[in-house]
Amino acid sequence: MNGLDSAIRDAGAAAYAAYGSSADAGVRYLTRFRTTDPVVYVKKQGERGILVIPQMEHERAVRESSAAVVTRADAGYLEYIKAGEPRWRATAHMIADLAAGPVLVPATFPLALARELESFHPVVLDAAGTVEGMRAVKTQDEIEQIRSVQRATEAAMERGIALIRASRSKGGILHLDDRPLTAEAVRAEMHTFLLARGCRGIDTIVSCGPDTALPHNLGTGPLLENEPIVIDIFPQDELSGYHADMTRTVVKGEPSPAIREMYEAVRDAKALGASEVRAGAVGADLHYAVVEFFRDRGYESNTQGFVHSLGHGVGLEVHEEPSLGPRGGALVAGNVITIEPGLYYPGTGGIRLEDMGAVTETGFDRFTQYTEELII
Amino acid sequence: MNGLDSAIRDAGAAAYAAYGSSADAGVRYLTRFRTTDPVVYVKKQGERGILVIPQMEHERAVRESSAAVVTRADAGYLEYIKAGEPRWRATAHMIADLAAGPVLVPATFPLALARELESFHPVVLDAAGTVEGMRAVKTQDEIEQIRSVQRATEAAMERGIALIRASRSKGGILHLDDRPLTAEAVRAEMHTFLLARGCRGIDTIVSCGPDTALPHNLGTGPLLENEPIVIDIFPQDELSGYHADMTRTVVKGEPSPAIREMYEAVRDAKALGASEVRAGAVGADLHYAVVEFFRDRGYESNTQGFVHSLGHGVGLEVHEEPSLGPRGGALVAGNVITIEPGLYYPGTGGIRLEDMGAVTETGFDRFTQYTEELII
Repeated sequence: MNGLDSAIRDAGAAAYAAYGSSADAGVRYLTRFRTTDPVVYVKKQGERGILVIPQMEHERAVRESSAAVVTRADAGYLEYIKAGEPRWRATAHMIADLAAGPVLVPATFPLALARELESFHPVVLDAAGTVEGMRAVKTQDEIEQIRSVQRATEAAMERGIALIRASRSKGGILHLDDRPLTAEAVRAEMHTFLLARGCRGIDTIVSCGPDTALPHNLGTGPLLENEPIVIDIFPQDELSGYHADMTRTVVKGEPSPAIREMYEAVRDAKALGASEVRAGAVGADLHYAVVEFFRDRGYESNTQGFVHSLGHGVGLEVHEEPSLGPRGGALVAGNVITIEPGLYYPGTGGIRLEDMGAVTETGFDRFTQYTEELII
Repeated sequence: MNGLDSAIRDAGAAAYAAYGSSADAGVRYLTRFRTTDPVVYVKKQGERGILVIPQMEHERAVRESSAAVVTRADAGYLEYIKAGEPRWRATAHMIADLAAGPVLVPATFPLALARELESFHPVVLDAAGTVEGMRAVKTQDEIEQIRSVQRATEAAMERGIALIRASRSKGGILHLDDRPLTAEAVRAEMHTFLLARGCRGIDTIVSCGPDTALPHNLGTGPLLENEPIVIDIFPQDELSGYHADMTRTVVKGEPSPAIREMYEAVRDAKALGASEVRAGAVGADLHYAVVEFFRDRGYESNTQGFVHSLGHGVGLEVHEEPSLGPRGGALVAGNVITIEPGLYYPGTGGIRLEDMGAVTETGFDRFTQYTEELII
């Protein structure tokens, strides 16, 4: 019995229902159908899940989806609309027909749909996050998909870093072909490269100097000599929907002694974190082990220092279960996670290094092969 | 008083609350903040809306967001977490504190959050879709943003069509530089061009021959001589989040008489639809006028023929209010809409032409300037 069947049974429900576009990772996971317009998914216990789509999407849905495909017309939706029911009501009516009993729904199920559905059957909230839990444990196929995105990502990282490596400083500003080399140019080089590999780079961070002290600063303008440049790239494969995620920090020229020391601490923290990964290890313990490690090296973590979590799951969402943060639980084999310690000090700058890999029974199957060198 | 204030008052609520990442167009509209992780927005009646973000996002949020920015720590969230409340509970608790009374929420508000929030204050569903309604009427600034995406989109269309124009047929298959010219190559050319303009092409349709009979077929493989090629492109500006949307159908070589006639009917249907656009015109009436027009030309609309709506609103979502379909209501000045009639016949092929523009008091301010020529 799969996880969703157990959850339906344990909830005393007849079926599980989800609603959303494929921007909703749960819907994408359950249907394997790409759509910008929302669709309905209903799975009765012990039966194959049903994807309900407009007539226009029928052929593509049959070809792409892992679910059984039914048109809205065949599911009765259009009749309810013709009878004058508003959209949410008609959708709920259709789900009620398909479920034929109490309905288990995910936490993000739309309130409007839940309230209409409640007039037909009880609506039970899946507080345990069953589908998030299923998504967090990757199959071998999913791991291969993610590895493949990671390979494209590392090649893109190399393209970006190659521009920085080839640049020359003029008055402290990096130049390439006699023009200032900007964060935008490095980002565009990587995104264009990724596009040709079928991957979409989104909000890739290329930040430099003072900007690096803010971990989520996208970065803008000319890159500087002797200053840390943080490149954090987390593209999504357009077809499969899976992400990779990696970060490197480099300096063209001479980093300050403070940056050098921070880099060494972060590199060692990453090695420490990775060395403790295995099935059964607790995410919060790993996080606090790194907090502790940084403290021993003289870096306290509060509003400065190590200000984020040690890592997170990666899959159809770039941030998903499990957490390697203060509230992280036990890891299981098949989790795909990042290990990404960082240190951030306004006035000095920031350093982050991030690898990704799979949790195994005995350790960390690191996907990331890309070199670690501060000075390029 | 703005629309949201009226809605809060009319609902007898104290505040409006929304939850989501910027993939949720309502959240993006209200906050103007880009984020892949969900954020909370709360607006009390008559007051400025508040965006609640993690500490790490504080500086960027202050710089980018149109809302007042408060960290989760300052909003009390972290205290509730420390006190052992689960994530949804702590989020609801924080929203309840900020709202200090009944809370109006959008239809897609997460059920888990609504159920927790209900233990503090009544949760009132905004059945009228107030924010969707606000989003449907664009400001002059928004119209300029969308025009700018449309300009990039037309330039991308020209790049794609230029490849087809420059190709030569060998045995019925279009070739460029002695290699078959594929749907993928045309798509990649357009996407790469768009990327350099800061826009992201998503699922651009480049379909040919039999594939064109399915309006949402993405298209794959070599393009064919004498067959319709449908190019439907709806990119999003990465920074502003606004979309454009346009479609052209071309043939390299000699189209069949049936395709020629369909093209003329679709072109005339588009002109008819556009000519009837103005504030006060009813979306459903426009749709059915085109259905009627096609019928007069001998094209019945059922599972073949004109199988989709005449058009839709475009903005932060590529499909949004208002609808120019069977259930479309009255248009208002400031709506940005598409007019996109199409005809689809398995065995013959499909034709679609799509323009975009703004509804004015007196007509249709068409943004699309791109030429209409079937044979290239």
